[in-house]
Amino acid sequence: MSEQIQLRERLAVVLVGARNPLNIGAVARAMSNFGFADLRVVNEYRVPLEDARSAVNAEHVLQAAREFASVAEAVTDCSLVVGTTAVGERKLEHAVDALPAAVERMHVCDGRVAVLFGSEKTGLSNEAMSHCQRLMTVPMQETGVSMNLGQAVAVCLYEMVRELPLVRMLPADGAAATAKQMERFDALLWETLEASGYSGRFSANTDELKLRRLTRRLALQGGDVDVWLGFLRQMIWKMRGSDKD
Amino acid sequence: MSEQIQLRERLAVVLVGARNPLNIGAVARAMSNFGFADLRVVNEYRVPLEDARSAVNAEHVLQAAREFASVAEAVTDCSLVVGTTAVGERKLEHAVDALPAAVERMHVCDGRVAVLFGSEKTGLSNEAMSHCQRLMTVPMQETGVSMNLGQAVAVCLYEMVRELPLVRMLPADGAAATAKQMERFDALLWETLEASGYSGRFSANTDELKLRRLTRRLALQGGDVDVWLGFLRQMIWKMRGSDKD
Repeated sequence: MSEQIQLRERLAVVLVGARNPLNIGAVARAMSNFGFADLRVVNEYRVPLEDARSAVNAEHVLQAAREFASVAEAVTDCSLVVGTTAVGERKLEHAVDALPAAVERMHVCDGRVAVLFGSEKTGLSNEAMSHCQRLMTVPMQETGVSMNLGQAVAVCLYEMVRELPLVRMLPADGAAATAKQMERFDALLWETLEASGYSGRFSANTDELKLRRLTRRLALQGGDVDVWLGFLRQMIWKMRGSDKD
Repeated sequence: MSEQIQLRERLAVVLVGARNPLNIGAVARAMSNFGFADLRVVNEYRVPLEDARSAVNAEHVLQAAREFASVAEAVTDCSLVVGTTAVGERKLEHAVDALPAAVERMHVCDGRVAVLFGSEKTGLSNEAMSHCQRLMTVPMQETGVSMNLGQAVAVCLYEMVRELPLVRMLPADGAAATAKQMERFDALLWETLEASGYSGRFSANTDELKLRRLTRRLALQGGDVDVWLGFLRQMIWKMRGSDKD
C-alpha cells in the first residue's frame, strides 16, 4: 500500500509531440484528479502551455509542467521508462505488457518512473520508443485504434491508484434488520395478507416458511423496518375498517 | 471470464443532462474503444447528436444511441441501476461503492445494467439518483472534484474489461538465455576483464562466484547473447592487439 503512495510521487507523465493545448489541459486535469503532479512535455518547438491553463482544477499541474527538446532529456532522472502503445499499430520491437502488469512493475521499481504518451495521430515514434525499457497497452476491443489522449492518461493513472484506500470514508450500507425486527415484519405482513383475503384464497402461498424465506430475501435495513411496519399497519387499519362498512 | 464478456453486452451507458456534443462524442469514442455499444441519452429537450458524430471511431455507437425524456424510461429494462458520483459533493442517501467493488456487483448481476453519468457541472440530481440501487465513485485524490465526462466513462469501462484477455496476442518477452549460453558469456567476459588488466588490479571483484551472480542479474535474452558475445570478442581482439603493439 505504501508503495503505491510512493508511485504517485515518483511518476512523471511525459507527453511526446502533443500539440493541442486542449489535450494537454485534459491530461493535466486527469493528473490533478488522481493526485499526480509531474508533467513533462517533449516537443521540437515551444508548446503554448498558457492555452491549456483554462483546464478545470489543473492549474498547479500546468504551472509546474516542464518542457524538453528530446525524450532523452525528459527522462534522465528516471529508472523505469515505459511507453504506451496501441497494439497492432506497427511491428513492435519491445515486449508489451497489459496495463495492470505494467503498473505492477512500476510499483516495485524503486526509482522515478516515466510513462510516455505519443500524439493521438501517430503514437510514439520508434525513436521515442527506443528510450523505453517496456511498452504497455490499455486493453481495448479493437487493435490499432488510438484512444483520446486525456482518456488514455486517465485510465493509466486510475490503474495506479485503484487499490488505494479512498481519501474520505464512503457512506456504507445501513445495518441489516435484526431477526427480531424481521419477525415483527413477518407478523404484520401475515396480518395484512389475511385482512386482504389473500391468505384465504391462496393459502399455499402464505405458508409460514414460504413467507419467511420471501421476506429474508428482501435485505431490509434496520432503519427502514419501522417505515415498512407503518405502511402495513395503515393498510391493515384501512382493510379492517372497510370490512366493517 | 465469460461473465465479463456478457457484461459488455448487457451494459448501458446513460448520460443524464449531458448537452455538449463534444462530451457525448468523447463518451461514444470511449465506449467504442472498450467494445460497448448501448448509449442512452436522457434530456428534457433534444440533443444534437448529429454534432457528436464527428467523434473518431464512434459512428456506430452514436448511430445506435437512443434518447429518453426521463431516467425512468431510460432504465426500464435494467435490473441494476448504478449512479456515478464524486464523493463529498453532497450528502448522499445511498451507500457508495468504490469502482472496483461496484463493477464486481455488475459482473454477478444477471440482467441488464445501467450506469448513469450526470453532467460535469452538477452531477446527477437527487431525482436521477433515486432511480439507482447503488452509487459508485472513482477513487480520486480530492473529494468533490468532478472528472471530465469522457475520462470518467473511459475509466469506468476500463474497470469492466481490465481482466479480459487481450484481443490480440501481445509480443512477449524473448526467451531467457540458457545456462549454457550464460557460461559462454561468463567465459568471454572473464577473458575481457583479464585482457583489459582489470582482474589483475581488482581481483576481489572478479571472483568466479561474484561474476556469475553479476551476469545472472542481467536477465539476458537468448536471442541477444550472440550480439553480446560479438561485442566481447571484438574488445578482446582489440585489447590483445594493442598489447602486441
